[in-house]
Amino acid sequence: MRRTSGGKWERLVVVGGDAAGMSAASRARRLKGPEELEITAFERGRFSSYSACGIPYWVGGAVADRDALVARTPEEHRERAIDLRMRTEVTEIDVAAGRVRARDLSTGAQTWTGYDKLVIATGARPVRPPIPGIDAPGVHGVQTLDDGQALLDALEEIEGRDGRRAVVVGAGYIGVEMAEALMRRGYTVTLVDRREQPMATLDPDMGALVRGALDDLGVTTVSGAEVVGILTGDDGRARGVAVKDAEYPADVVVLGIGVRPETGLARAAGLPLGVYGGLLTDLSMRVRGCGNIWAGGDCVEVLDLVSGRERHIALGTHANKHGQVIGANVAGGYGTFPGVVGTAVSKVCDLEIARTGLREKDAQAVGLKYVTATIEATNSAGYYPGAAPMTVKMLAERRTGRLLGVQIVGREGAGKRVDVAATALTAGMTVEQLTALDLGYAPPFSPVWDPVLVAARRAAAAVRDAG
Amino acid sequence: MRRTSGGKWERLVVVGGDAAGMSAASRARRLKGPEELEITAFERGRFSSYSACGIPYWVGGAVADRDALVARTPEEHRERAIDLRMRTEVTEIDVAAGRVRARDLSTGAQTWTGYDKLVIATGARPVRPPIPGIDAPGVHGVQTLDDGQALLDALEEIEGRDGRRAVVVGAGYIGVEMAEALMRRGYTVTLVDRREQPMATLDPDMGALVRGALDDLGVTTVSGAEVVGILTGDDGRARGVAVKDAEYPADVVVLGIGVRPETGLARAAGLPLGVYGGLLTDLSMRVRGCGNIWAGGDCVEVLDLVSGRERHIALGTHANKHGQVIGANVAGGYGTFPGVVGTAVSKVCDLEIARTGLREKDAQAVGLKYVTATIEATNSAGYYPGAAPMTVKMLAERRTGRLLGVQIVGREGAGKRVDVAATALTAGMTVEQLTALDLGYAPPFSPVWDPVLVAARRAAAAVRDAG
Repeated sequence: MRRTSGGKWERLVVVGGDAAGMSAASRARRLKGPEELEITAFERGRFSSYSACGIPYWVGGAVADRDALVARTPEEHRERAIDLRMRTEVTEIDVAAGRVRARDLSTGAQTWTGYDKLVIATGARPVRPPIPGIDAPGVHGVQTLDDGQALLDALEEIEGRDGRRAVVVGAGYIGVEMAEALMRRGYTVTLVDRREQPMATLDPDMGALVRGALDDLGVTTVSGAEVVGILTGDDGRARGVAVKDAEYPADVVVLGIGVRPETGLARAAGLPLGVYGGLLTDLSMRVRGCGNIWAGGDCVEVLDLVSGRERHIALGTHANKHGQVIGANVAGGYGTFPGVVGTAVSKVCDLEIARTGLREKDAQAVGLKYVTATIEATNSAGYYPGAAPMTVKMLAERRTGRLLGVQIVGREGAGKRVDVAATALTAGMTVEQLTALDLGYAPPFSPVWDPVLVAARRAAAAVRDAG
Repeated sequence: MRRTSGGKWERLVVVGGDAAGMSAASRARRLKGPEELEITAFERGRFSSYSACGIPYWVGGAVADRDALVARTPEEHRERAIDLRMRTEVTEIDVAAGRVRARDLSTGAQTWTGYDKLVIATGARPVRPPIPGIDAPGVHGVQTLDDGQALLDALEEIEGRDGRRAVVVGAGYIGVEMAEALMRRGYTVTLVDRREQPMATLDPDMGALVRGALDDLGVTTVSGAEVVGILTGDDGRARGVAVKDAEYPADVVVLGIGVRPETGLARAAGLPLGVYGGLLTDLSMRVRGCGNIWAGGDCVEVLDLVSGRERHIALGTHANKHGQVIGANVAGGYGTFPGVVGTAVSKVCDLEIARTGLREKDAQAVGLKYVTATIEATNSAGYYPGAAPMTVKMLAERRTGRLLGVQIVGREGAGKRVDVAATALTAGMTVEQLTALDLGYAPPFSPVWDPVLVAARRAAAAVRDAG
């Protein structure tokens, strides 16, 4: 077997066959051919390079075809000389020897594979609180395409029944999107969340606007309710959820509680993990203190450029960026991932929900004094047909006036306005600077003062007033 | 009569009662009451504080009511202790004596009004090329609400006729919007333009995409055709336009050729004008070299932050910003208008057209070497229902990689993406920095790589390749 000699030929092993891992593998392959770089990738599931973010739309029926969510199949990767081994789970990383042990989930056979460079892209796993019945049939996560298929199979079994009910646990992005998806499939949906407002990625005042939209949609939202158990029937299947003082019967239970980095392998290998359990990397996405191991995607922590702290954010767009950076670096190119500002956007029916930067409690947690400004405006000129209201909340640091965060709830065209704030946060702009931004204006697109500018003016005035 | 004494009481005169002038007056009034500041404003037209940008939508019928375009009526201004004199044209500025002469257009009476501080907001006038028949009845500009009303009155006269035809001269934003508006009213529309592609605010390759959309809409686009005369009938009314080798008959002719700063008064008063004929101001919007005269809106030139040159851009959003800055400064507050990056957005049916920063010829004109990248992407995840194509062209400076400009043509959600680039231009970001921006991602809003990021990646690669 050939070994590395003078950088001529190397073995790259990738653990995890979704966005970060396969982006890294593909980028590396574009930069180096098989004569220079051997690439082996392991994926324990049945799907590669897919959009987990698309699962709610597939379950809800907006996306008819599961294959549409797959950006690149295992076969397509193999055609590009990437040896992608599906249904094969890496069970150990032997850092000292530079090898990984993998188990073929079909045959149970175990093999060791040596690497010169290793990419860890093991993703995240859904939080499953340790409550009675949590592993009962009929309790579904929606983290992987396999999860989505299992849920759809379960839904199809009961599709004919009258009065189908679903409980979704967790009212974050996934929970809210799944609530809508199940509504669209004809379920009566109850959304149970332990927090006081849905969408805790927003401040409570903005989350309250989302609750209103869920009410209008006909979703029953139960807030401040910690799930203490899964109700099960005689057959052992889930029949609903129990909170402290109430029970919510259901034909199906979907968990949308959030995810944690899947870093058991990394922890066992002694690699550095952060406070959220995610791998810690440098700007090149190299695992800290490791010369030949990179990590990216949902299994790493990322630097929040606004707070200066590490965070864990599971989001496909970050995973893809990580993969590009890792792929360049393992193939002798150069790339960095400077960090995130915490941008997220979502939709409940025609309500668009977006946020970037720090919420009030995030600012408090890092010792920042801030002012807030919340304004109501319209997405297009007020006189333009279909003009609809939107609410923008902006946080700015006291004294410096530095933009700290923006939250938006509104109709069409509201959500992606958060990108202006994301760009301004990255650039370290003040809200006073924001007020002068030359944003696109025409009546179908915006009032003469874009809502983001209106919020900036209000925030700038608040900074001056606060002194 | 009281005079200024110790800054206790002052007389502010505003020339022009639309966006810039009345924003300035209103802001000044909020900061200083009538006991400190007397405000007199003169407007030669019949309308104050209106949205000229809304005229095509009013003419096209999307906005039913003219009054909807008026943000604040003369009466509303007067209720706020602003003495707004309508149908009264300022005919002379006497800088030495600190007074303006105004003529009441109804009575012909002339009066002098003294000022301590003067705001010039005389706007722009449409270009009317010196060709035979240009002043014939049936030739319409669409610059003011009075213009719009005159056009609508003319259209109503011929509304019953079969086979109504319209010629729109000029295929810029206004021309294209008016072409659509007249199509919607049932006219057969010919759009005549002297340039080789419609929408010359874009590079020709991107303008070609707009031509395709106009074709689909059924608008006949005649490019490279300079209008040499207006055809008139026996009654002296316009009957079409003549270009060098052809004639285009029409029941109505609309001029959308562009505008020039309306600075006859300022010129006569010896105030400094730039190469485009617009007033030159400092960052506080004070006319250069003048202690007590400010100017804003369509009658001034603005600093282009990308090229470092002055430009003339007639756009309501700038006028409103100028007004805010002027109002603060004349009332003893503080504000600046740092400049523009040249953002514009428009719509032809469901085609969205946007640009910011420099086109290729703009970059050439200021001696910048650049690379370009043009990409095709979709406005939402490719698998999401209704995903539609969009084209993004990006210019970056060679060597430095600094973002120079972006042009976008696409469907819903395409146009306002230009705001990310506008913000990045303002911050002086490189395209490499752009590739890492944390933009909002969810399947209904964007592919996992936002089209702006895809363009940035391509542009960054082009910068590296160009060396």
